[in-house]
Amino acid sequence: MTGPKKKRTNLYAESLALHEQYRGKIEVHAKVRLKNRRDLSLAYTPGVGAVSRAIAENPDLAWKYTLKANTIAIVSDGSRVLSLGNIGGYAAIPVMEGKAVLFKKLAGIDAFPVCFENYHTEFADDIKNIAPVFGGIALEDIAAPKCFELEEALQGIGIPVMHDDQHGTAVVVLGALLNACRVTGKAFEDLNVVICGAGAAGFAITRMLRHIGYDPGLFPSVNDIIVCDTQGIIHRDREGLYTNKYKFIIAEETNRRRRTGTLADAMDGADACIGVSVPGIVTPAMIRTMADDPIIFAMANPLPEILPKDALLAGAGVVGTARSEYPNQIHYALAFPGIFRGALDVCATRISPEMKLAAAHALAGYVKRPRRERILPRVLNRGVVKTVAGAVREAAIASGCARKLNDIPVEGYPG
Amino acid sequence: MTGPKKKRTNLYAESLALHEQYRGKIEVHAKVRLKNRRDLSLAYTPGVGAVSRAIAENPDLAWKYTLKANTIAIVSDGSRVLSLGNIGGYAAIPVMEGKAVLFKKLAGIDAFPVCFENYHTEFADDIKNIAPVFGGIALEDIAAPKCFELEEALQGIGIPVMHDDQHGTAVVVLGALLNACRVTGKAFEDLNVVICGAGAAGFAITRMLRHIGYDPGLFPSVNDIIVCDTQGIIHRDREGLYTNKYKFIIAEETNRRRRTGTLADAMDGADACIGVSVPGIVTPAMIRTMADDPIIFAMANPLPEILPKDALLAGAGVVGTARSEYPNQIHYALAFPGIFRGALDVCATRISPEMKLAAAHALAGYVKRPRRERILPRVLNRGVVKTVAGAVREAAIASGCARKLNDIPVEGYPG
Repeated sequence: MTGPKKKRTNLYAESLALHEQYRGKIEVHAKVRLKNRRDLSLAYTPGVGAVSRAIAENPDLAWKYTLKANTIAIVSDGSRVLSLGNIGGYAAIPVMEGKAVLFKKLAGIDAFPVCFENYHTEFADDIKNIAPVFGGIALEDIAAPKCFELEEALQGIGIPVMHDDQHGTAVVVLGALLNACRVTGKAFEDLNVVICGAGAAGFAITRMLRHIGYDPGLFPSVNDIIVCDTQGIIHRDREGLYTNKYKFIIAEETNRRRRTGTLADAMDGADACIGVSVPGIVTPAMIRTMADDPIIFAMANPLPEILPKDALLAGAGVVGTARSEYPNQIHYALAFPGIFRGALDVCATRISPEMKLAAAHALAGYVKRPRRERILPRVLNRGVVKTVAGAVREAAIASGCARKLNDIPVEGYPG
Repeated sequence: MTGPKKKRTNLYAESLALHEQYRGKIEVHAKVRLKNRRDLSLAYTPGVGAVSRAIAENPDLAWKYTLKANTIAIVSDGSRVLSLGNIGGYAAIPVMEGKAVLFKKLAGIDAFPVCFENYHTEFADDIKNIAPVFGGIALEDIAAPKCFELEEALQGIGIPVMHDDQHGTAVVVLGALLNACRVTGKAFEDLNVVICGAGAAGFAITRMLRHIGYDPGLFPSVNDIIVCDTQGIIHRDREGLYTNKYKFIIAEETNRRRRTGTLADAMDGADACIGVSVPGIVTPAMIRTMADDPIIFAMANPLPEILPKDALLAGAGVVGTARSEYPNQIHYALAFPGIFRGALDVCATRISPEMKLAAAHALAGYVKRPRRERILPRVLNRGVVKTVAGAVREAAIASGCARKLNDIPVEGYPG
């Protein structure tokens, strides 16, 4: 057995042992005391009746009196978990629990896993129906295109709903790209970007860098994007696009230069390549055809599209991956805790494009002096959440997404 | 303002203040540490992948590796909350949180509120669909008859599902009745019982005392029951019974003496009266027509069917109510924490009638020397849960409801 493989095997064994020891990485903790009959009559009947009556008259008071104020659901049907694929709701549980640990430890958010056994057409209605107790919903590990459909169907239910695999990743990529421009001296608005992979993350990154559906006045977008999928470059004249609404949107909004061909063709002259696809698909030869000092984010799992050393040897100026053993780990945990923290702080009604852009710029700004090997802070850095949350709160208020509850004390809400 | 009313008003104000202070009586606590990259790779990716793979192969391993082992859902649509009626899913949240506090403090169970905004016909499917993460489901504050239909539809989903308002109450009533017999010298199997109220609790108490659907060999049942609703005595020849399946079952299985008439007619000669109806409906005159030394459980809310002092003056031998300021509080919190604790300890597949009967007998047996003013232990007595849970575990194993998981260490499961 080779070294790295053995190391991974040991990690798996240790993780299994840890999970067997704890039988649950999260637990429900009671914050109030229950020592005597008085405690019982305050926390439960009959005292709680006054709270229920108040909320029955104004459901928004759930933000003031209940766990809704700080609790989100992590919703998954386990249809696209890590690199394991469609493994179902049961097998998704430990991943969602792990995410709940991140939410709690990094952002103080109470996150509870809601794992569905079966996906069905009324899934959005099901999620909406269990929303009263939650102040937000993080969608997780749900396969495309249903992750797009679901997120769309859940906008407007009055609480933030965000598919982290899409927008958490897109926010961190934008933050990383801003700092990669700072260290290479490139102008962000002049960038020609190749995105390799048109799944959930690829689509969200494309939308974010091109500001599709965003207020154009807020921040500049890149110059042009070319998106590649397994069939090569997506362009308007490609056959079969009309069967996939999301690829159609990509074709409409990218590739202004009307390029056609393969990934190699797309890379020719590009300033940056963002990989959210499969290991090993980017070659040194492709990188040699790019513009000077190119930016390579190779985020495939479990191995990058090209190994950092190979990319650097081929002339890459900045390299980021999804993995912690290389410099510049591009990990969505740099985004989602702060985004939901900021949203909950103002009892947000939704997550606006402005809030996501603000999160990305705050993340980039958090690194005071970016270097080629340090364009992003480390994942478990507690200061990141605070900075991102603050920017998200401000953007929520500015974009009209903060809930106006006269007598509810909320952090960051003016007046 | 009168004394008791003012006291209640103060309690309400204090409860509102407590809820505003905590904004959630429960929180999600992370049990594992997350200090460095190694912690992250064990609790989350990539280490957690090994756990997910194992569960994907055998979903039962969720009991071994995840929060399912100790977590239940408290499910409500808020259609019948306390004495407040149909107040909806939002207003139900603080009540369900209070119940979660009871589960945690009394039984160490992680209970999470699942509050539905709307009840609809596929409700059972919805609940089943979010079951992966839960080791049990407590149904709560759901109006009859949908609470019956729902519980029935959810039997057989592989985890315990119990409507506490029905079975928790029935278990405590049976326990109380057994000890009331001990102190009055009555033989349980000779009792003629009147049940006043044919809602969720009345139906469950009837089934439990008559062992409807139970193995008849396990414990004796009472001699006869007469159930009264707003129209008086339920009997086989009463019109309109066929439109209500549950009242039809009552008519078939009770009132062997074919009595007809009003509640007063039912009480004539009865040994015990169990009220789960409305305040003030039982009169001293009715009690005077009962057998010697009668047993009166007057459990209406917010005030009993008859005040204890009036019942005692009229000749009652033992009186119990739902309220904590009188002796003999008959509160379902004496049952549900221990029942779910015992069930989770053996990863139970369901809650069998035997488990409920065992809980009732264990509860009665916990009071070593019952007196007329102390037929039940106090609600916050921690020893009760342990005793009830132990009996439920044994009954689960004996009735084939303990999950056989070779390599899963479970308390109380032999071998």
